Amino acid sequence: MNFKEIMETEAQKINFEIASFFNDYLVIRVDPFVLQFYSSLKRFILSGGKRLRPVVLIQAYKGLEKKLNLEIYNVALCVEFLHNASLVHDDIIDHDETRRGEPSFHVGYEHWFKCNFPRNVNWRDFGMSMGILGGDSLLQLGIRVIQNSNFELRLKNRAISYYIQSYEELINGVLYESFLQNLPLIEITEQDYLTMAAGKTSALFEKALLIGALLADGEEKNRESLKSLAVNLGQAFQIQDDILGIFGQEKKLGKPVFSDIREGKKTLLAVFSAEDERMESLYGKQDLTTEEGELVKKVIEETGALEKTKKIAFELSKTASENLARIPFSPDTAKFFEDLIEFVRSRIY
Amino acid sequence: MNFKEIMETEAQKINFEIASFFNDYLVIRVDPFVLQFYSSLKRFILSGGKRLRPVVLIQAYKGLEKKLNLEIYNVALCVEFLHNASLVHDDIIDHDETRRGEPSFHVGYEHWFKCNFPRNVNWRDFGMSMGILGGDSLLQLGIRVIQNSNFELRLKNRAISYYIQSYEELINGVLYESFLQNLPLIEITEQDYLTMAAGKTSALFEKALLIGALLADGEEKNRESLKSLAVNLGQAFQIQDDILGIFGQEKKLGKPVFSDIREGKKTLLAVFSAEDERMESLYGKQDLTTEEGELVKKVIEETGALEKTKKIAFELSKTASENLARIPFSPDTAKFFEDLIEFVRSRIY
Repeated sequence: MNFKEIMETEAQKINFEIASFFNDYLVIRVDPFVLQFYSSLKRFILSGGKRLRPVVLIQAYKGLEKKLNLEIYNVALCVEFLHNASLVHDDIIDHDETRRGEPSFHVGYEHWFKCNFPRNVNWRDFGMSMGILGGDSLLQLGIRVIQNSNFELRLKNRAISYYIQSYEELINGVLYESFLQNLPLIEITEQDYLTMAAGKTSALFEKALLIGALLADGEEKNRESLKSLAVNLGQAFQIQDDILGIFGQEKKLGKPVFSDIREGKKTLLAVFSAEDERMESLYGKQDLTTEEGELVKKVIEETGALEKTKKIAFELSKTASENLARIPFSPDTAKFFEDLIEFVRSRIY
Repeated sequence: MNFKEIMETEAQKINFEIASFFNDYLVIRVDPFVLQFYSSLKRFILSGGKRLRPVVLIQAYKGLEKKLNLEIYNVALCVEFLHNASLVHDDIIDHDETRRGEPSFHVGYEHWFKCNFPRNVNWRDFGMSMGILGGDSLLQLGIRVIQNSNFELRLKNRAISYYIQSYEELINGVLYESFLQNLPLIEITEQDYLTMAAGKTSALFEKALLIGALLADGEEKNRESLKSLAVNLGQAFQIQDDILGIFGQEKKLGKPVFSDIREGKKTLLAVFSAEDERMESLYGKQDLTTEEGELVKKVIEETGALEKTKKIAFELSKTASENLARIPFSPDTAKFFEDLIEFVRSRIY
């Protein structure tokens, strides 16, 4: 199977596990509010996503393990749940109305509220409350899938440690981002950005790799190489995400084009073009017109910021490859991760 | 030692552990944003609170264990962190500006933002973001204290299960409350209220008891009695909390008087007086005057709702006592819990 086929096959299996998990979970609920809430979480998660994090976990496991325990497919949900928890909370924080081309979780509940209580003005509050609780729920469900599995107690315990570490690093990454968000673009450095991305994006890839490897070999022999692979890959992934956020197509993106520009998101593209005076007036302008949005794109290209950013992503992915070469993965898995690095470097969706 | 002395001595020890935990935690942080964030969490938790939940955990442990492992004081923080996580998130959901007489966590960050970025209008968003992340952090720190302790792996694993169960039940309780909040008062039943309180309040007392008992005897012999004790005690506690919320004094309460009435909080007091027509116009009125607030209190008394509510709390605490009698606690611990039940029944702060 080539990379695309592996991704698709594994994603299908993972989606099946997600659906089963929620179905089992829902069977024992009787309260209609609670039932509806977990059904909404299930629908939210299944509405899209490439399942990259659980696939990474499973591949790391398969690449170091000869005797396949199929419960790895259950455990792998932990990183998907944690990822979705952060999406749900981030969408509140960033006021994102859509996600994967559908209403974001809290906005879905805003709509629900408006339909059910048309004369009540508290729809915004209600959506926010459900969003906070939705993210909170997914955080605990991630631990539950590890605990429910039949791996050795010692390994599960260690996996939970990794899980809460990535949880903490993810929070610190969003925290870092929230603080950076309020600083003038001109004051932000490349290093600030990379620190933020290491928390916000790499941490979860890292723990996906570490959990997969841990459950496979029971030891942590390749920990440093796995970590470096993940940090570099995650940063490259985040940079590519930012590039797509500005230069990608709305349909593939699942969110409005120019929303990163309107928000004034602190991307490397913006950091590197910050000295152009047009950026100061346009970047972060909430009522940005299409023409102005196109102008920002032009500035980012003309100042060389796009080129410079791409070069950094390229260097990061090269370092990721070097670290990958140090890990004694099976040839198939090594090939998968090589392809993944290439995918991150060149992805257009 | 009498009940009050035990509560005070244990709370002091627990506060010491909370401070130590955060100090150790902060030592390894270098990033100023992150450092400030965890310092704020520490300050928030230490700003007040009776530490009732960790004391319950410790007492249950001591009542069933002969060989005291002092690490129980570390583990006990888990229920305090979880409780504070829910306070931080609830204060956002309920728009509560103060907590324990100080700004609530997210409002503290609103102030910080206004001081540091006086020309930026996003202070409200920033406060909310920090509040969401603050609660998220405390949720994971609760797991960390269990994992860091030196109890047997099997027991720690089981304790984490209890932790995430109470976490889930707490969420479901708040969920239930959020839904009830939008229904007309007249449609809400006593049972709705009790279901909500079982999740919102009892769940955490229950798991505090179960974790303490589990770590003491390694088994779960008294599980059903412990559960019933907690469910009844928690519901009684919540009812008493509601009574204090309306009939207590602002200073002792740490929150504005009448805020429950202005919010239209779905308490038993309100449920039982719902048929009085004055309730419909006044209960939930956001610009309620002091006179109107006093009138609501009068209605609750005149309709007999206060009496009826107190009677239910009394019955619940009686059932709690009956369950307590079935648990083979040491005499000191049994006495402590008898006093606790009496405290819940009669507390004025």
